[in-house]
Amino acid sequence: MESEPTRVMVAVNESTLRGYPHASISSKKAFEWTLKKIVRSNTSGFKLLLLHVQVQDEDGFDDMDSIYASPDDFRGMRERNKAKGLHLLEFFVKKCHEIGVACEAWIRKGDPTEVICHEVRRVRPDFLVVGSRGLGPFQKVFVGTVSEFCVKHAECPVITIKRSAEESPQDPADD
Amino acid sequence: MESEPTRVMVAVNESTLRGYPHASISSKKAFEWTLKKIVRSNTSGFKLLLLHVQVQDEDGFDDMDSIYASPDDFRGMRERNKAKGLHLLEFFVKKCHEIGVACEAWIRKGDPTEVICHEVRRVRPDFLVVGSRGLGPFQKVFVGTVSEFCVKHAECPVITIKRSAEESPQDPADD
Repeated sequence: MESEPTRVMVAVNESTLRGYPHASISSKKAFEWTLKKIVRSNTSGFKLLLLHVQVQDEDGFDDMDSIYASPDDFRGMRERNKAKGLHLLEFFVKKCHEIGVACEAWIRKGDPTEVICHEVRRVRPDFLVVGSRGLGPFQKVFVGTVSEFCVKHAECPVITIKRSAEESPQDPADD
Repeated sequence: MESEPTRVMVAVNESTLRGYPHASISSKKAFEWTLKKIVRSNTSGFKLLLLHVQVQDEDGFDDMDSIYASPDDFRGMRERNKAKGLHLLEFFVKKCHEIGVACEAWIRKGDPTEVICHEVRRVRPDFLVVGSRGLGPFQKVFVGTVSEFCVKHAECPVITIKRSAEESPQDPADD
C-alpha cells in the first residue's frame, strides 16, 4: 500500500495576450513539466491542486471605456470574469482527467503573491510549482515576478519552471 | 514504454558537526524528501545524480596545528579528505540501491555554489534539489546560503528543501 499521494499545488493564470481566454504560456509549461517530469506514469501517487488567482483591475474594466459604466455593467463584468476563470481551470482539470491524475481546482481573488502564499498555508501542499517568464533583471523591475516572491515567502518547497526562449512571445513581458 | 527517467541532481554535503563523517542534516533531509515525495514507488522513473562538492580549506588543515606540516602531512590530508567524501556518497548510494532507484555519484572540489551551477550546465539534470538550513535573514548574512545562489543561477529548475525546526542543532548555523 502506498502512502497518501504527494500534493502538488500548481499556480495557473491567464495569458496576457489578446484573444480568447487561455492559460498563460508559463503556467501551461509549469503544468506540463509537472506531469512529464514528476507525475510520469505514477498517476495514483500524485494529486494536483490547481489554484488560479484572479487579479482585480483597479477600475474593473480591462480594455473598455468605463466612464459611463452602470451597476449593470459591473455585474456583467463580474460574471464574465468568473466565466473566464472557470474556463481557465477547465483546461487544466480536463487534462488531469484525461491522464487519470486526481485534482482539485479553485479560484481566489486578489494579489497573486499574497494569495498563493496564503493558500499554501491553508492547504499545506507538499510543494508548489510556479511558472516564470524567465525575464532578465532589467525587465523584472517593471513587471515584478510572482515566482521570486513565492520562492522567498511560501511556507513549502517551491519549484520555478521557466518558459524556454522559443516559447516567449514578441514582448517577453507578455505571457 | 516510459520515456527516459527524470534525472534529479541532489547536492549533498558533510555535516559541520564534530565526529565521524556523516551527511549534513539538510542534505539528508533533501534526499529523503526526494525519495518520499517525488520518486515514491516509481523507482524506474527516476535517476538520482548525487553531487558532493568538497570545500578546500585555505590551509588544508581543519582542526590541526598546521605550522609544522610537511609535504607528507598534506598528502595524508588529501587522502583522508578523499576517503571522507567517498564515505559520504556511499551513504546515499547505498540507500538508492536498497530501494532500487538508479543513481550516479561523484565528487568535485571547489566553491559549492560555483561547482553546483557548473555541474548543472555539464550534466543537464531535469531539476536540482538542495537542502537548506532555513536560516533567518540575520543569520544568513554570516554564513551565506548555497541554496539561494543555486535558485538564482543554476540553469535548471531548483527546489529547496528546508530542515524542520526540530531537526536544527543547537547552533542553527550548524548542519
